[in-house]
Parts: sequence; structure tokens; C-alpha cells
Amino acid sequence: MNEFELIHRLVADLPRNDTVVAGAGDDCAVLDLGLGDRWLLFKTDAVVEGVHFTADTPPEKVGHKAMARCLSDIAAMAGTPSSALVTIGLPKDFSADRVAEIYVGLKATAAKHGVAIVGGETTTNPERIFISIALLGTVEKGKCPLRSGAKNGDAIFVTGELGGSLAGRHLEFEPRLAEARWLAKHFQIHAMMDVSDGLAGDLRHVLKASGVGAELLARAIPVSRAAKVRFKERVTTTPPLVAALTDGEDFELLFTLAAKDAVKLKDEWRAAFPGVPLSCIGKITAAPGLRLRDERGVKELAAHGYTHFT
Amino acid sequence: MNEFELIHRLVADLPRNDTVVAGAGDDCAVLDLGLGDRWLLFKTDAVVEGVHFTADTPPEKVGHKAMARCLSDIAAMAGTPSSALVTIGLPKDFSADRVAEIYVGLKATAAKHGVAIVGGETTTNPERIFISIALLGTVEKGKCPLRSGAKNGDAIFVTGELGGSLAGRHLEFEPRLAEARWLAKHFQIHAMMDVSDGLAGDLRHVLKASGVGAELLARAIPVSRAAKVRFKERVTTTPPLVAALTDGEDFELLFTLAAKDAVKLKDEWRAAFPGVPLSCIGKITAAPGLRLRDERGVKELAAHGYTHFT
Repeated sequence: MNEFELIHRLVADLPRNDTVVAGAGDDCAVLDLGLGDRWLLFKTDAVVEGVHFTADTPPEKVGHKAMARCLSDIAAMAGTPSSALVTIGLPKDFSADRVAEIYVGLKATAAKHGVAIVGGETTTNPERIFISIALLGTVEKGKCPLRSGAKNGDAIFVTGELGGSLAGRHLEFEPRLAEARWLAKHFQIHAMMDVSDGLAGDLRHVLKASGVGAELLARAIPVSRAAKVRFKERVTTTPPLVAALTDGEDFELLFTLAAKDAVKLKDEWRAAFPGVPLSCIGKITAAPGLRLRDERGVKELAAHGYTHFT
Repeated sequence: MNEFELIHRLVADLPRNDTVVAGAGDDCAVLDLGLGDRWLLFKTDAVVEGVHFTADTPPEKVGHKAMARCLSDIAAMAGTPSSALVTIGLPKDFSADRVAEIYVGLKATAAKHGVAIVGGETTTNPERIFISIALLGTVEKGKCPLRSGAKNGDAIFVTGELGGSLAGRHLEFEPRLAEARWLAKHFQIHAMMDVSDGLAGDLRHVLKASGVGAELLARAIPVSRAAKVRFKERVTTTPPLVAALTDGEDFELLFTLAAKDAVKLKDEWRAAFPGVPLSCIGKITAAPGLRLRDERGVKELAAHGYTHFT
């Protein structure tokens, strides 16, 4: 049983109440607690030593990554983050200096985005450091793009460049909070999420939630320089396009909007965020499934078949 | 460096913003996000296999304990819980059935208290299960007893019985949500917290936050039957009174209010919660420190000196 099968089983009959606008299955939970014209966003995300970082990772960057991952989920809802709690599991022989430096990163990244750290907990996790961030944010009611809103004919966009994040970006990325709020303010975004598990896999979540399919254009996918260098220098055997489709930890925004708005978006984006690439990578289709079009034609992207594309 | 010294170092300069009513250092963070006449309560709490439960613990009870601990912190603020996120770190060879049964406990306890489970995360923690609950609740503005409100002359009360929780209660306790809301509604509670690390240690947090001291009356402390049995049957060498002062995991309410209200409280409590003991265990003093009065006189309770009391 993989992670997604397990989650599917666990979330089958979760208790609900009348405050829940969107529960398990989106980037954040969306709650209506009577906050005037705003909804509350609620999210947790964990990083674990040996899984998401190593004993050699500079501790400030560990703290940055832990906070930024969670902020990226608030961004995916076009939200504004507000406050965080930090849960940290520590081995008995932890280095207080290392933990304090992790906190330097947590605090700096929180402060940069106006987030208060309002408490948390230290506990014991004997073999490795385990950090879970719980984050609250808010978003204007009705201005919160869910995964389920993609429509047949939509253009699919992604910010930044994809693949090869392990070369360094996964420790240094900046969550696309300003970009996401700008998008939701100026355009009718139909669906949005952040790319954390790889473009192909994450796009599938949007397609499933929306009951649609998609066709991607291979040459339009923004492959990162890191993915190309890692392949060229044989750090990895993953071809750059496959890396861009599957690597994960990109923390870019993936979203769809009506095709008629695509040109206007490209123009206004260039003026608003001149340093951030924005790519139209394909279109939403009524036919289900995920397909990739390249110079040789159109191929179905099977869920576990990426390594066949070279 | 112990846990409290580390926390003291980490929370020294946490980023804040103007939504924070109370941050690190109370049972929950208290936030003013514009929720009409209510504040938001925000809390995380973790349980770790081998630390808070064992591989033999019935998994439903693990789920119950994880959720109930966090609910007990909402109770300590006289709040009403609303929604939860569940973060669970799993070894690679986890049993899906065991995890599903943990969720049965999580869901049942959440549902019992009107709490929606609105998502969460599964991640990898190779050696052991790690469960962190993030919980949101609300409380009427100004009706939220902090740790810092205890006043010289206050009577100190505790619900239930203390000590020996490891005999079973730590897996089965019910958070005192209804009792706490009743207290805040009908009485002017000056300070409140839940007893999770042992009465003596937890009361010290109230004393420090409030800038006062306390004198406890040994014979008034409600020692649990479990603590007595465990000592008599030599499961533990901890004398029952010391167990009641130091065992931890009681999850009872510890609170103070003006001495003039104490008799009225005892009378009305008996009518409202006939099955739940309520004990007046001592008084708040202007002189700092924590003292215990027994038939031999008054002794200072040193922070690490409990084992001297027999």
C-alpha cells in the first residue's frame, strides 16, 4: 500500500462540521469560522532528518525549508499566512546549537512573510529530528482556487522552472505567496496547487479532483538548468524532461484558467514579475488521462511510466 | 540542557504580529483574527511510539490519546474545539490496519467533541510512529483564563484525581472541555492550565507566569487509587502523594480563583458534575516558591526534590 492508497483509506469517513469549506484533499483546509469576508486556511507539513534533509544540511536552511514548504501551501490557495506553531522531535543527544540555528531559519522565513510563531512543542524522537509546522492563514471568501476547479479548454500554467531541485533549490526556494495573490486578484484562476511531488503527479490530483484530463506540450515545459546539468554531469540518470515532470520539491505554482485569458496573463505577468518565468504548458481536456505531446506525437503518461520517456 | 531550558532559548525572539493575544508559553496560542466576539485558539501536540505509547498499546487508544491531549489544552483555555489536522510519520513497514485503527480512535474522539478532521499528512519516520495533532478552537473574548492571572490569596483547585495515570488513565481520559467552559461561564477564573507534566511542575508554570507563590495542603491533594495501588503492589517505588505531585499525564484542570468564591464553586460544581471530584488543594501566596504543608509543618518543594517526600 503506497502513501496515496493509505490516505484514501484513512480519509474515507473523517468527522466534519459546518465550518468546513474544503477538507482533506486540497493544499490547505478551508474553514469558515465567521471571519467576516475571509476564510481561514489551515495546514501542517513535516520535514524529517534523513528524508527531507540530512545531518549535513546547514541547519538554518532546514528551518527555512520547513517553514517555506508550509507557506507554499498557503500560496497555493492564494492566501496570506498569519501564524505558525513549531513541533520538533529531538533525539536525546541533540545539539542545542543546531536546534537554535534551525530556529534562526524558521524565524527569519516566518518574519519575512509576516508570520508570527506563536508556540509549539519539543518532544522526543530518538533517532532523528522531526519538524512539523502548523500554519494558519486567511483568504478572501470565494477567491481561493481549489484543485477541483479546472475546466475543459483551460490553459495550464506553471511558474518558475522544474526539476533538479535537490541540487539546492529545495533548501532555498521562496514560496510564491505574492505571485499567487496577484493571480487570484487579477484573474479568474480555476484551479491551483503547488508542485511538491512532481508536475505529472501533482497535475493528476487536479485532473482527478476536477474530473477532466490534460495534454502537455513537451517543449513548453520549463526544464531547470539544474536538471540539465545533473543529467549531463551524470549526477542522475533521469533525463531533464523527465526530471521536470517527476522530481518533486519544486514548490512552484501550477494553475489553470480560461484559454481566452492566457495572452493577457502572459503580458501582465511579465510586467508584474519580470524575474519569474511563467509557462503555458498545455491544456485541460474533457477526455480523462494525462498526455504528453512531443515531435513524435502524443503519448499517454502512465502513472509510473515516466522513465520510458527519453 | 533540559527541555525547558531549550524552549526558553528558542522562544526568546519569536516573530510576532498584531493578531497575537497570547503566544508561546500558555496551553494554546490565542489569536485575534477578527472573529467577532471570539478569539481563535491554536495548539499542536505530539505522541511518539516508545515515548507516549508502545507497540503493544491498542491502536484505537493511541488515536484517542493523541486527540484527547490536544483537546485538553483547548479545555485549559475554556475553549470550544473546532478542527484538527493529523500529521503521522510512519516506518516503511507500517501496518495499514494498525494505522487505520489509530484513525478510528482519532476520528471517534474528534467526532465526540464536534471536531472536524480537515486533513493532514503522512510522511516517513523510519523507526517509529510519530503523530502530531494541530487543533483549532475558539473562545469568547476575555473569557480565556491564561497561566498569568493567578493572584495572591486565590484558592487553588484541581479536578479529578492525580498520579498513577500510566496504569491506564493516560490512554482513556476524557478532556475536561465541558467542565472548563462551565467554570469560565459561571466563575471568574484567574488562571487555568491542564495538568500534563505533574501537578508540582505545572503549578510552577502558573506561579512563574503570575509572579506569585503557592502553599499546597498535602492531605487535600486528591491522590488517585491507581497511584496507591501501584505503590502498594510495588509496581513503582514512588509514594502515592509524590506520584500525585509529579507523575504527569493526568490531564485534569488546575485553576485558581478568589478565595471568596471557593465555597460557592464547591456547591455548584457538585450539582453540575456530580461524578467529577473537585479539590481545593491550597492557596496562592505573595511569597514566591512552592510549599507543601503536612502534619509535620511546611516544606519547600524544590524543583527536583520530590523524592524526598515520603
